[in-house]
Amino acid sequence: MTHEAGIPLGIKFKLLSDTPQDSAAQVVGDVVVGDYRDLDTLRDFARGCDVITFDHEHVPTEHLRALEADGIPVRPGPDALVHAQDKGVMRARLDAIGVPCPRHRIVSDPADVAAFAAEGDGFPVVLKTVRGGYDGKGVWVVDSVAEAEDPFRAGVPVLAEEKVDYVRELAANVVRSPHGQAVAYPVVESQQVGGVCDTVIAPAPDLDEALALKAEEMALSIAKELGVVGHLAVELFQTRDGRILVNELAMRPHNSGHWTQDGAITSQFANHVRAVLDLPLGDPRPRAPWTVMVNVLGGDYPDMYSAYLHCMARDPQLKIHMYGKDVKPGRKVGHVNTYGDDLDDVLERARHAAGYLRGTITE
Amino acid sequence: MTHEAGIPLGIKFKLLSDTPQDSAAQVVGDVVVGDYRDLDTLRDFARGCDVITFDHEHVPTEHLRALEADGIPVRPGPDALVHAQDKGVMRARLDAIGVPCPRHRIVSDPADVAAFAAEGDGFPVVLKTVRGGYDGKGVWVVDSVAEAEDPFRAGVPVLAEEKVDYVRELAANVVRSPHGQAVAYPVVESQQVGGVCDTVIAPAPDLDEALALKAEEMALSIAKELGVVGHLAVELFQTRDGRILVNELAMRPHNSGHWTQDGAITSQFANHVRAVLDLPLGDPRPRAPWTVMVNVLGGDYPDMYSAYLHCMARDPQLKIHMYGKDVKPGRKVGHVNTYGDDLDDVLERARHAAGYLRGTITE
Repeated sequence: MTHEAGIPLGIKFKLLSDTPQDSAAQVVGDVVVGDYRDLDTLRDFARGCDVITFDHEHVPTEHLRALEADGIPVRPGPDALVHAQDKGVMRARLDAIGVPCPRHRIVSDPADVAAFAAEGDGFPVVLKTVRGGYDGKGVWVVDSVAEAEDPFRAGVPVLAEEKVDYVRELAANVVRSPHGQAVAYPVVESQQVGGVCDTVIAPAPDLDEALALKAEEMALSIAKELGVVGHLAVELFQTRDGRILVNELAMRPHNSGHWTQDGAITSQFANHVRAVLDLPLGDPRPRAPWTVMVNVLGGDYPDMYSAYLHCMARDPQLKIHMYGKDVKPGRKVGHVNTYGDDLDDVLERARHAAGYLRGTITE
Repeated sequence: MTHEAGIPLGIKFKLLSDTPQDSAAQVVGDVVVGDYRDLDTLRDFARGCDVITFDHEHVPTEHLRALEADGIPVRPGPDALVHAQDKGVMRARLDAIGVPCPRHRIVSDPADVAAFAAEGDGFPVVLKTVRGGYDGKGVWVVDSVAEAEDPFRAGVPVLAEEKVDYVRELAANVVRSPHGQAVAYPVVESQQVGGVCDTVIAPAPDLDEALALKAEEMALSIAKELGVVGHLAVELFQTRDGRILVNELAMRPHNSGHWTQDGAITSQFANHVRAVLDLPLGDPRPRAPWTVMVNVLGGDYPDMYSAYLHCMARDPQLKIHMYGKDVKPGRKVGHVNTYGDDLDDVLERARHAAGYLRGTITE
C-alpha cells in the first residue's frame, strides 16, 4: 500500500521481503528476498538506497544502528523505533515526558505479578512481553497468580499493566518529517474483536472536542519528543472517567489509519513516504463526514472470488483493498472502506462487505 | 496508473514494455521487454495471461486477432479497437450508426483535398493520416492545396475533415464490461494547447444539461455498438450552433479521465481494470463539485525536484502524479489534480502547480 501511494509521487521502492509471496513482493518491481534479522543481508540490501523505512517494527534495533553508522538514513531511526519495539522502553519514556499511561511496571515472576496487583485494584492484570507482540499476541489478561506463568516462559522481560476500565479505544495518527513539520489526522474510534482491530470509525463519534484535541496534541508531542520520522499511531484508551491513556505506539502506517486511503485528502501511506523523504506533508483532513474501515478476515472458504463480485455489485461505492494473501481462518487478508454523510449507512455497508467476504453474512 | 489502481483490487499485472525505462516498467513487478509489433513476442508474452489489455492503441489489429484465435481474451477486442486505430474505419462506422461527426471523406491526393474543400465551405481543411496519429501528430490544418502535400508522403490513407467552428472541446468517458454493464463519467471540458491536452475541467462548466446527457448517451451508444470493453473516451467538439460532433475515440484510460483519480468515487483506471476482468463496475460520480487536471510538460530544466517540493509545500491538498520520465521540453511527464468547491480557486491551484513544475511560473 506504501508502494501504491509512492507511484504518483514518482518514488521507486526496493523491497526486502521474507518470501516472494509477501503482499508487497507481489506488486513491487525490485524485490530482494532475505531475512531482516541478518545484518549482512540488511547491509547488502541497503547499498544504493537513499533511505530505509519499514512496514513492521521487528528489525533489530542494533542492526538499524549499524546501518546508520554505515551512513544509510533509517526513518524512523532506531532511537525512535525502539519505543515501538520495546514496551518497557516505551512506558519508561512516556512516564518521563508526562504522557498518561495505565499503571505499569516490569515484573520478575508470578509472585511479583501478585505484588503488582496488590499495589492497585488487584486482578485482573495485563501482562505483555516487552518485545515481539502483535495483534493480541504476546498479551495475557490474567485473573490470578496461577495464570501468570506463561508470559515468563519466553525469556523476555514482562511488563504488568492495570486492566484499564475503558469505554472504548481511540487512535491518534500523526506524521512527522525530519525538518519537523507534522500533521495530525482526526482521532478515530478503533473497535477490537479478540485483540484484533475490526472496525475503525473516522472521526471517533461523539468524542468531546477538547479530548480529541488533547489526543492529537499528545500524539504530536510524543512524535516530537521521541524524534519519530514518518507515521506514528498512538493507540489510546478512553476511560470511563473521561481520561485518555496510551495503550500502544506503532511507527509505520497503521491499521487505524487505513481509512485515510479513501477518506482523507492525503493517505497515511502517502504522508509516511513524504515524511521519510523529507518532502512537504499533505493535508490530513477528511474528505467525507464519516469514513469506516472494516478488516476482512479469512473465513472457512479459501476462494473469496464470488463474494468479491457480490460486494462490488451490491455497493458500487465500496472501496476494497485486498492484500493478495492466501485465505486462512482469522487472517487479515484485506480491508474495506466506505464513506458518506450518514454514519449508520456507512457502517452497515462496510460491515456487510467485510462479513460477506469472510462468509459470516450470506444474504 | 492502471497497476496502481489494480493493487487494492488484488490484480496482478504482467507488462510488455518497449524498454525497461517506460513509466509502467518502473513500477510493475513482472516486466517483459519486447516489441508489441512482433507476433511471436506477443504470443510468448500472452501465455498464462487471463486477459490482455493496453495503454495505447498501436498493437496491430491482425496480431490481436491472432491472439484471440489462440484463445487469449483481448479487451477491448480487435473488432472494437480498430475504430480507435483507424480513423477511416471509425468515421465510416459512426456514420453507419448515425453519430454526428464533422463532414469528412478519404482523399486521394492534394487535388482531391481541393475538391473536398469545394464541396463544403472551402479551406481550411483538416487532414489526418488514418493510422498512427497521437497528440496532434499525424494531423495537419491546411489553408490551400499547396499545403496539402505532406500528409500523403506517409503512404497511409488520408482522411479530410471540415475545420469545425467549435466553442470548446468536451470529452465523454464511459466504461463498459463484457456482461454489458456500463457507467458514464460526467462530461468534461478539455482545453488543448498546440494539439496537446492541457487542462481538463470536471464537470464541463456551464454545459447545458440536455447536451451533457446527449453526450453521455452518445458515448454509451458508441461503446455498445462498437462492442467496446473497458474505458472509452469520446472526444467531442461543441459547435457554436449548439451541436456536439465526435472528434476522436480512445479505447483505454485517457488523459481526459485523469481527473477521476482524485475526483471520482472510482477512477477510470480502476473501472478499466474492473471492466477488462468482467468485475462489477464502480461508481463514476464525482467526489467534489469541481476537479481540475492540468498536464505537467517538461520545461528547460531537467531537474524538477525543487519545484516539486515547492508545489507540495504551497498546496498541501495538491495531488501530483509523476510518470518517472526524463524531462524533455514539451514532453508529458506528469499531471496534477486539484478539487474543491470554487472553480476559480481549483483552476488557479492546478495551473500554478503545473506551470511551476514546468518552469513557466517562478513566483
